[in-house]
Amino acid sequence: MSKQIVKPSTLPGFLEFLPGDQVIFNRMMDTIRKTYEKYGFIPVDTPTIEKSEVLLAKGGGDTEKQIYRFNKGDSDLSLRFDLTVPLARYVAQHMSELTFPFRRYQIGKVFRGERNQKGRFREFYQCDIDIIGNGKLSVINDAEIPSIIYSTFTALGFDSFTIHINNRKVLNGFFDSLAVENKVEVLRIIDKLDKIGMDAVKSELKEVGLKDEAIEKIEQFINIQGSNDDILASLEKLGIENEEFAAGLDELSKVVSYIRQFGVPEKNFAIDLKIARGLDYYTGTVYETILNDYPGIGSVCSGGRYDNLAEYYTTQKLPGVGISIGLSRLFYQLKEAGFFKEEIAATLTKVLVVPMDENTAYSIGVANKLRQSDVASEVYLEGGKLQKKLNYANKLGIPYVILIGSDEIETNELTLKDMKVGEQFKLSVDEIINKVK
Amino acid sequence: MSKQIVKPSTLPGFLEFLPGDQVIFNRMMDTIRKTYEKYGFIPVDTPTIEKSEVLLAKGGGDTEKQIYRFNKGDSDLSLRFDLTVPLARYVAQHMSELTFPFRRYQIGKVFRGERNQKGRFREFYQCDIDIIGNGKLSVINDAEIPSIIYSTFTALGFDSFTIHINNRKVLNGFFDSLAVENKVEVLRIIDKLDKIGMDAVKSELKEVGLKDEAIEKIEQFINIQGSNDDILASLEKLGIENEEFAAGLDELSKVVSYIRQFGVPEKNFAIDLKIARGLDYYTGTVYETILNDYPGIGSVCSGGRYDNLAEYYTTQKLPGVGISIGLSRLFYQLKEAGFFKEEIAATLTKVLVVPMDENTAYSIGVANKLRQSDVASEVYLEGGKLQKKLNYANKLGIPYVILIGSDEIETNELTLKDMKVGEQFKLSVDEIINKVK
Repeated sequence: MSKQIVKPSTLPGFLEFLPGDQVIFNRMMDTIRKTYEKYGFIPVDTPTIEKSEVLLAKGGGDTEKQIYRFNKGDSDLSLRFDLTVPLARYVAQHMSELTFPFRRYQIGKVFRGERNQKGRFREFYQCDIDIIGNGKLSVINDAEIPSIIYSTFTALGFDSFTIHINNRKVLNGFFDSLAVENKVEVLRIIDKLDKIGMDAVKSELKEVGLKDEAIEKIEQFINIQGSNDDILASLEKLGIENEEFAAGLDELSKVVSYIRQFGVPEKNFAIDLKIARGLDYYTGTVYETILNDYPGIGSVCSGGRYDNLAEYYTTQKLPGVGISIGLSRLFYQLKEAGFFKEEIAATLTKVLVVPMDENTAYSIGVANKLRQSDVASEVYLEGGKLQKKLNYANKLGIPYVILIGSDEIETNELTLKDMKVGEQFKLSVDEIINKVK
Repeated sequence: MSKQIVKPSTLPGFLEFLPGDQVIFNRMMDTIRKTYEKYGFIPVDTPTIEKSEVLLAKGGGDTEKQIYRFNKGDSDLSLRFDLTVPLARYVAQHMSELTFPFRRYQIGKVFRGERNQKGRFREFYQCDIDIIGNGKLSVINDAEIPSIIYSTFTALGFDSFTIHINNRKVLNGFFDSLAVENKVEVLRIIDKLDKIGMDAVKSELKEVGLKDEAIEKIEQFINIQGSNDDILASLEKLGIENEEFAAGLDELSKVVSYIRQFGVPEKNFAIDLKIARGLDYYTGTVYETILNDYPGIGSVCSGGRYDNLAEYYTTQKLPGVGISIGLSRLFYQLKEAGFFKEEIAATLTKVLVVPMDENTAYSIGVANKLRQSDVASEVYLEGGKLQKKLNYANKLGIPYVILIGSDEIETNELTLKDMKVGEQFKLSVDEIINKVK
């Protein structure tokens, strides 16, 4: 019976790696996870599929268009499109069983049926942390977050990156003091500063109805530069009499001061009065992280403080602060930019044990010992010439090969071949374990 | 504006853990992953969503009924229902870029819209390994698999478990020698032996048309008992003249012999002539693993040898051998059975640093040092009385608390409180790091 062959392929926008890339990707994910855990975050793993009425409780906007939603039996189901809405549902649902402040991390896939374009994916990993208070949450938590970003990106191998920090109350209060009503519009225009320049920004602000005096003040505001302390001093000097502005400036000062306590070097964080991060969610501190050698990637880790995590699921007030790393996109962009320069192995195996004659049983014994000492090992169990077996190690990038022939068995001295250097050594199993570990 | 509150809940059949369980679940998953990697398996992570025509290339049976299938735009999409079909597609698609034998592991969620019942889940983790040959694959690989099962379940904390092994060629050849045509039916009846007893099995075999002579031979066959060597000898003694039977017996003997080389103790594996594992896929060695203290769970790790992994996607012959652990179900059943007896912490944090007066900045410095030494730590940043702060540690099960008051800062001797024993010690930060690590 001849079978119908279906062409093996994945859907457009759905990422899948070959082993070499998968190994690097997993290493990055492990690094992020390990760092999150070091800061006391607890793992949570919510279902991929949830009730549509739950995931879409807030509704509106792109979410509803992009979500993967379908029926099964009588159920209206959706795939999660972020990890924040499931967190809100989780905390509201299990509130009485959780301990607050609740520090949770979740690393998992989310799904968005976006328009297909290079570097955007429909299924991708997010790596989130949030600290949720029950009723209230100290602003010092806002200062700990940059230290976690700092530790994470340092551990990922970056040294030149800047965590941009702002406070939404500073922005809101400032605009209120100028009687600006269409803040969303104004922020959108300011956001284009780097692209279109100050003159264009000013004329656009005029077009949306701002008075010259307000535009001048805004120019002054976004021109504020210098060290973090300089910026705080300049904000003070603006002499704005607005309660929210004052509260925001106080928070921003405290956050900057505590960020230093948390050990983040001055060069790795900067107050940036231009960042706002969407308007309907964040209410205080906001973050964006830029890799200075790869500015084109945009922010690689963003987030902020919010007043109310779960307002659609509970009347309990749950303020929080959190960040997210879009790992799939970050990996893809870094790879495109040539960031991964090391020689890539398509395996985690450290040692390949190669029986040269009929010595498979002995070779298995050697591999047993290596594995007992936590050395990832394989035995080449197939037939064939030595060169074929060495090719297997070479193709995968296995760094060491142990050759087992009759001589080796007689003397208990094994031949260890360093595949990078090409050198060979005669060693006992224990010596090999010490060498490769 | 008062918002409509949506009741926060998950769908029936969709598992979600509170932190204490999640910590244990993740530890089990890490143990499995670490063991798979130690044996040289390469991580693969295929998309959750695939083309329906790809996932359903084989089609038929329960799969089509249970699959989550839906449309988005013009695309006919399905959620993966196992990790084997995606592996087949992956290997066929990337064949020229992979190195064979291809040893891959995948740990991920799969989705089946089964009837809702206790202990069965619609979204659950599978932990799979497979070794795929290009054209051929040595039978010694079939012997390595039990050693991986052995290492995995030993590392998970079990000592009394049995890996049941059989060979489909032995069964097929045996039935052919008796001219049994309806093998599926006969195997289904034999499978009920433990439940209904030999007499009932015999009468059912008679009902489906087997002759007395064949039934007698089958009784003789499934009554074969004793050590692994005894069983092999008894099979030999049956005197069955059938090529497939002879080939199967030869494989089974080799596999048993090499399992010993791979270091699996005799008490942990047993030839079991009654296991077959479905009829249309496996073609040689088959495995089931029983936890002897929890036989009611059924097989916790099953699999086998197949001739042709990807026949629906390529004409290339890809024989392989693999196993799967259904981790979500295993965890759930073990928890129900009271397996997890240890005191459960709802966090991974080792140390909570508690500022007693206005010593938050100093406390942050202490936590920085702990984290630099990879000790998972938190600072209690909220206000409140000491008792409230200690309660936080107690509720989460954080084992150590460092109390920071003015005295401690002056002397640089911190107070470490062991929360289990209740004892307190005066120690430097370095001494604390050594103690808690």
